[in-house]
Amino acid sequence: MSQKYVYLFSEGNGSMRELLGGKGANLAEMTNLGLPVPQGFVVTTEACNKYYDDDQVMDQAVIDQIFANVAEIEALSGKQFGDASNPLLLSVRSGSRASMPGMMDTILNLGLNDEVVESLAKLSGNARFAYDSYRRFIQMFADVVMELPKHTFEVIIDEMKQERDIILDSEFTADDFKEMVRRFKAYYYENKKEDFPSDARFQLLESVKAVFRSWNNPRAEYYRRLNDIPSTWGTAVNIQMMVFGNMGDDCGTGVAFTRNPATGENKLYGEFLMNAQGEDVVAGIRTPRDISELKGIMPEVYDEFQEICDKLEAHYKDMQDVEFTIESGKLYMLQTRSGKRTAAAALKIAVDLHEEGMLTKEEALLQINPAQLDSLLHPHFDPEALKAVEPIGKALPASPGAATGKVALTAESAVHMAEKGEKVVLVRLETSPEDIEGMHVSEGILTARGGMTSHAAVVARGMGTCCVAGCGDIKFLQDGSFELGGQHFKEGDDISLDGTTGFIYGQPILTEPASITGYFETVMSWADEFRRLDIRANADNPNDAQQAVDFGAQGIGLVRTEHMFFEGNRIKAMREMILSKNQEQRERALAKLLPIQRADFEALFETMRDLPITVRYLDPPLHEFLPTNGKDIEELAKEMDVEVHELESIIDSLHEFNPMMGHRGVRLAISYPEIAAMQTQAIIEAAIAVSKKHPEWKIVPELMIPLVGEVRELTYVKEVVTETADAIIKRENSDLKYMVGTMIEIPRATLLADEVAKEAEFFSFGTNDLTQMTFGFSRDDAAGFLTHYYDKNILEQDPFARLDQSGVGQLVKLAVDRGLEGRPDLKLGVCGEHGGDPSSIDFFHRVGLDYVSCSPYRVPIARLAAAHAALNNK
Amino acid sequence: MSQKYVYLFSEGNGSMRELLGGKGANLAEMTNLGLPVPQGFVVTTEACNKYYDDDQVMDQAVIDQIFANVAEIEALSGKQFGDASNPLLLSVRSGSRASMPGMMDTILNLGLNDEVVESLAKLSGNARFAYDSYRRFIQMFADVVMELPKHTFEVIIDEMKQERDIILDSEFTADDFKEMVRRFKAYYYENKKEDFPSDARFQLLESVKAVFRSWNNPRAEYYRRLNDIPSTWGTAVNIQMMVFGNMGDDCGTGVAFTRNPATGENKLYGEFLMNAQGEDVVAGIRTPRDISELKGIMPEVYDEFQEICDKLEAHYKDMQDVEFTIESGKLYMLQTRSGKRTAAAALKIAVDLHEEGMLTKEEALLQINPAQLDSLLHPHFDPEALKAVEPIGKALPASPGAATGKVALTAESAVHMAEKGEKVVLVRLETSPEDIEGMHVSEGILTARGGMTSHAAVVARGMGTCCVAGCGDIKFLQDGSFELGGQHFKEGDDISLDGTTGFIYGQPILTEPASITGYFETVMSWADEFRRLDIRANADNPNDAQQAVDFGAQGIGLVRTEHMFFEGNRIKAMREMILSKNQEQRERALAKLLPIQRADFEALFETMRDLPITVRYLDPPLHEFLPTNGKDIEELAKEMDVEVHELESIIDSLHEFNPMMGHRGVRLAISYPEIAAMQTQAIIEAAIAVSKKHPEWKIVPELMIPLVGEVRELTYVKEVVTETADAIIKRENSDLKYMVGTMIEIPRATLLADEVAKEAEFFSFGTNDLTQMTFGFSRDDAAGFLTHYYDKNILEQDPFARLDQSGVGQLVKLAVDRGLEGRPDLKLGVCGEHGGDPSSIDFFHRVGLDYVSCSPYRVPIARLAAAHAALNNK
Repeated sequence: MSQKYVYLFSEGNGSMRELLGGKGANLAEMTNLGLPVPQGFVVTTEACNKYYDDDQVMDQAVIDQIFANVAEIEALSGKQFGDASNPLLLSVRSGSRASMPGMMDTILNLGLNDEVVESLAKLSGNARFAYDSYRRFIQMFADVVMELPKHTFEVIIDEMKQERDIILDSEFTADDFKEMVRRFKAYYYENKKEDFPSDARFQLLESVKAVFRSWNNPRAEYYRRLNDIPSTWGTAVNIQMMVFGNMGDDCGTGVAFTRNPATGENKLYGEFLMNAQGEDVVAGIRTPRDISELKGIMPEVYDEFQEICDKLEAHYKDMQDVEFTIESGKLYMLQTRSGKRTAAAALKIAVDLHEEGMLTKEEALLQINPAQLDSLLHPHFDPEALKAVEPIGKALPASPGAATGKVALTAESAVHMAEKGEKVVLVRLETSPEDIEGMHVSEGILTARGGMTSHAAVVARGMGTCCVAGCGDIKFLQDGSFELGGQHFKEGDDISLDGTTGFIYGQPILTEPASITGYFETVMSWADEFRRLDIRANADNPNDAQQAVDFGAQGIGLVRTEHMFFEGNRIKAMREMILSKNQEQRERALAKLLPIQRADFEALFETMRDLPITVRYLDPPLHEFLPTNGKDIEELAKEMDVEVHELESIIDSLHEFNPMMGHRGVRLAISYPEIAAMQTQAIIEAAIAVSKKHPEWKIVPELMIPLVGEVRELTYVKEVVTETADAIIKRENSDLKYMVGTMIEIPRATLLADEVAKEAEFFSFGTNDLTQMTFGFSRDDAAGFLTHYYDKNILEQDPFARLDQSGVGQLVKLAVDRGLEGRPDLKLGVCGEHGGDPSSIDFFHRVGLDYVSCSPYRVPIARLAAAHAALNNK
Repeated sequence: MSQKYVYLFSEGNGSMRELLGGKGANLAEMTNLGLPVPQGFVVTTEACNKYYDDDQVMDQAVIDQIFANVAEIEALSGKQFGDASNPLLLSVRSGSRASMPGMMDTILNLGLNDEVVESLAKLSGNARFAYDSYRRFIQMFADVVMELPKHTFEVIIDEMKQERDIILDSEFTADDFKEMVRRFKAYYYENKKEDFPSDARFQLLESVKAVFRSWNNPRAEYYRRLNDIPSTWGTAVNIQMMVFGNMGDDCGTGVAFTRNPATGENKLYGEFLMNAQGEDVVAGIRTPRDISELKGIMPEVYDEFQEICDKLEAHYKDMQDVEFTIESGKLYMLQTRSGKRTAAAALKIAVDLHEEGMLTKEEALLQINPAQLDSLLHPHFDPEALKAVEPIGKALPASPGAATGKVALTAESAVHMAEKGEKVVLVRLETSPEDIEGMHVSEGILTARGGMTSHAAVVARGMGTCCVAGCGDIKFLQDGSFELGGQHFKEGDDISLDGTTGFIYGQPILTEPASITGYFETVMSWADEFRRLDIRANADNPNDAQQAVDFGAQGIGLVRTEHMFFEGNRIKAMREMILSKNQEQRERALAKLLPIQRADFEALFETMRDLPITVRYLDPPLHEFLPTNGKDIEELAKEMDVEVHELESIIDSLHEFNPMMGHRGVRLAISYPEIAAMQTQAIIEAAIAVSKKHPEWKIVPELMIPLVGEVRELTYVKEVVTETADAIIKRENSDLKYMVGTMIEIPRATLLADEVAKEAEFFSFGTNDLTQMTFGFSRDDAAGFLTHYYDKNILEQDPFARLDQSGVGQLVKLAVDRGLEGRPDLKLGVCGEHGGDPSSIDFFHRVGLDYVSCSPYRVPIARLAAAHAALNNK
């Protein structure tokens, strides 16, 4: 016996999304709930996958089952498919496991042909309606199945309007539509060299195949990638008896949400049109009416509809997005699904549903998509203002939020302009650590180069500043100004960025500030009840640290000390250190940096009180601190009192072919242990000073050595660190405790984690670098070729944004398991970008980390995601 | 009861090397063989390790056991240590598990003081001898134990010679030595502010500690690193009754090999001096006499010595390097060990020992160090000529052999000079693929930058050309000429390189060609009997391929196709391809490359007949094919008929921050599948053409996709490859078979090897890249900071030269195991540099690879190493 590829609605239920798709499962569920759903059946996703496996040939078993089910519908409805006397008309709609609105194709009025249309006219008593339906069917079928573009038919419609001197479709008469059908079919014949198919069975099978094919159309692929939907899921096809909202004035159609999807208010929200088909509502020619008005027109239908909505909400325990049609005064439900909503609405609805007793706290939490909260945590454009403008470019949405300001072309002028009180958008080829101050004062950052994990992107996300990165269309001119989208920008010109979408606008746009409602705090406190993971933030200064605490961070998981070395005099001392010819000179320069670092750490400890702080020792290659262009080199040479060519040759000697795998991280501390000693002294002295001021705080600094790949690296540097620290603690007569640990970011360290754990009191996974090395992808270079990977379905996700659980994840798991073998009380965390990504957080929960650390602006997201992880993995 | 830390010679044996060190174990073994060995005992390596574990304090148990054994020696000899009437004098010598000649310290004549020396004078009847011994002891003890440098004593000796107007030590009288002792002790007091120690027990304990400490002196550490000896082994200390070869004319001392260590000839080879101590033989003031002359002087001693040598050879089944002393006509054996020998001698001795029935074939093979064969496979300097010159610099010995020639500063001038018949040494800051032709014509290559796996090093080893790399002391001047070691070099100046030692000489030196004796072939044929691994070679052209076959390669494991694109017109077509603006242009350029590639492959198939050939698809980032300096860019722009700034902007757009992890390997084929299609066409058409000419050959090309990290990369490119290949095979009506496989060089591919193996018919491990990614070390940049790693004992080996078995090896093993799960008949090989390294080959044997592939010049080494692996892992 063949596999079952087709299910009547009455054979399915809401839990069969995988097989029947979301729409099909919900139609089945509604059918079984006894709601008025037009009869129909579902061709399963397995049939779709089989179609692809069989090189796009439809299996005979599938065909047979489709027609067997058509026969069932015929029996139920008393109508005959393809029969001119009492015709059954069908709709064919896609429906995948996940909602992919508008991404795939639909064909209505299937079964019409020259004879059936006559019968439909007679039976409905409405020839205009019948021919209108027929011409729509031809249009849709030609477009979806035969790839004759829809708009070519629109040309014919326009011609006919001109001939008749009319403007609206509604002015066409029945004869006009009849003539239109004639012209459509002629056009079809001209292009396809064959008659428009009149065989209903042929129409049906070809439509089903077309829907299968639409699963892999470019916009569906794009949507899937954006929403993390595997291509292997396939789509189901829903085949359903047509009901008509456009057969007369006792007919209508509409869409509604059971609550307000923008605010969450508990009140029906939607619109409808009388005597119309669904697409008319969308087309926007007739203005739809507010759903509340239906009560006046058809009170019984309205009440039935409200009742059904309540029933659906209670059944699905969620706000629903429904479609309905009224045919000759009878209400039909065509679709129900969980409604999309704004983040604010999501919070209110979840809390309300709990308070209404419909959801437990756990269920309410799981109903809120953590990633969605992001929009509440950043400014955004006024939606009305946004409607009036067109973007002039698009690039990577590297850090969310909206920014409007004056173009600054260098970090210096950004600072200068900001001092004058202007709002600034910094536009650079790419940013480097020297630009930090300019980035800090900017509303937004736009770069021509670099990906989602470029310097600009990483730093901007850390700061919560909007950033659009890697806009290859920007063309910089000789004078530093640039062109984009045909517009020329010089310093001071207006520009706007949307870091959530990646759009760039050549004018100012009204922005609205971040809005956090009271529901937000409620949801966060619930999340905290259930999550097991601690949430920390990555922060390099007291401002960011305070922001993190305000958002609920339980510590700092990553202080990048190098960010402390770029401002003002610091960079000078840093450069002096780098240019030192021997250890003595180097120690002299380090002595200048010491008080600066110590003060930085004191401020951090003061801010964080006794929450834990993990300090990463100097990580980037030294050349990042040196200038690259001639003028800056000349200046520095003068400042440092060395010859230009000598300085150039030092800079040259620091050049590396692959700096990401070069002299950085622990490798610096091994070459120059005095740097590690200075940093230790700064941290420990700061911790002791603050502890003395606040003896009630129990400060335990966590000292983190980056880029360890071999345990002896750690052993060596740890000795430098503990000797320095212990001597200070003894000298100060303090009882300060501290921990020494390492980042796990080199594949080799994961393989030998048991050995490494013998020396390290904690591991913090640096999943950015670990992803780079495990894939062999340079995060600064990969954006370019990864687009080919997405286009060709080789990767579906940016592995720098979402942890690659099948590959990189194996190494993380291995390191956790072996690390705990080496040290059973090993503390485990992650401080890479993935620490703020919900699906990655789920993984980190499962492998047993103690905490995740992310940018301050993602802390609330991480809190909720961690609760989801705990609830989903109970 | 305390652990046993001290063994009498008679308590030990030759198998106790780990505990007693090589020298101690051999002295014990000789003692038990009944040979005349002066009485003594060994302080174990465990005592040394305990000394380090206890922060350099000697354990009381060790002290007690030392003196208990001194008492045993006293009882056996009837003499008393530190006793003036009948004194026992001792020697203290280091002796680690592995031979470390001259790396650690020795103290002789221990037990002497002002009283004992008098007694010694009386007992020996030779006051001059006694005081000479005493002053030598003071010198050695002060140097080794007290760190008063030896040469400061030499100054005193020189003063005394001047005062006496004499030249040789032998002209000193007994009184002179007595005076010398006085001055030495005065000098000692002056510097140490204490008297020279007269207590024999103190002398002994301090000497033992000093030998322990010498285990970690810089030259010992360096030697260990060079020879892969772990620091955890520690050294034993041999304490032995002194015998004197310098007490009179019936005394003497000498060293000998039981066979000739240069040629392997089966005849005693050595030298001796009458009335002398060991160090006199070394000092070179008196010319030692050939060992054969001893027969005339002391025939009975000579015969006894020959008999002992025969006995030792038979016992140890190897040629021995022995030391002996004759005291008052009695022969004493002081040391025996396996003798170091030239590669040629090693081959002859092993074959001879087998033919003499002393060794099985297996044992004979294991006696030859595979790495040593290298010297037979390359030209080398005439040893006499080498003695007369001093190096002017030293850098990494990147590719073995010796080269003498005229300096060429560019690849072009190298070609030009070679065409005029000159021998050329190419000197560059670093080399790039564009330099290939110039490298080909050069005798040797010297670079200022880059490590053992830089482009220059890798290519040179592949070509068998001598290369010295990364000479940071070279200073290039504005005009392109350079300075090194105070010498200025311009084009055409003489220079010589030793790629085996890394030395650079500023003059021509006579070189000798590689010499391969008949024994070589015998040993190779034996090796082939026992090895399981196949040996292939990496070769990119018919010359290298022929060389590989001549050396016994069983196929080509790696053809780097990009090397085919650098010569003459090819680079032009390649650049045209890269600069193409669309697929059509690109295909046009590829069409020009096609016939060239096809001809290359035809030549390779003709050379290799039906031996397997693995062709790697285009691997390096495209920018490597484009010029970098202004003039070349201008020329190319003209040639390609594009604007200079346009070309510059294309080159700029191809720039990558970390090209090693950038757009290369399979990533190119995914972006530009037409490149993979062209390469497939070239290979398949070539294979079919050659197969048609030689139907008796069964040619099965192996098509290898590099840098795969995700199975879908391979799936995608494999489809391009098989579609292209199958269409050609069908068109040509051929029955050609081919395989598609991948390199495993990305950590992620090892983790997901089961999936990858479902698509790949073979794996070839690219351990260079795998090492880079697993350590996060850029091989082009790591040389600089790795020196700190060696200095600080963090790494003992260059992981690019010897596979890191504990880290990278885990991934190799994992990939083998999972790969075989995914495809049980998966073919497994390695084509990274490690494929020619004996210890790595042992690993590859153990994890179950089918073959290793290395440079043609390492094929014989790999054959022997593979036999060793099979024999050692039986």
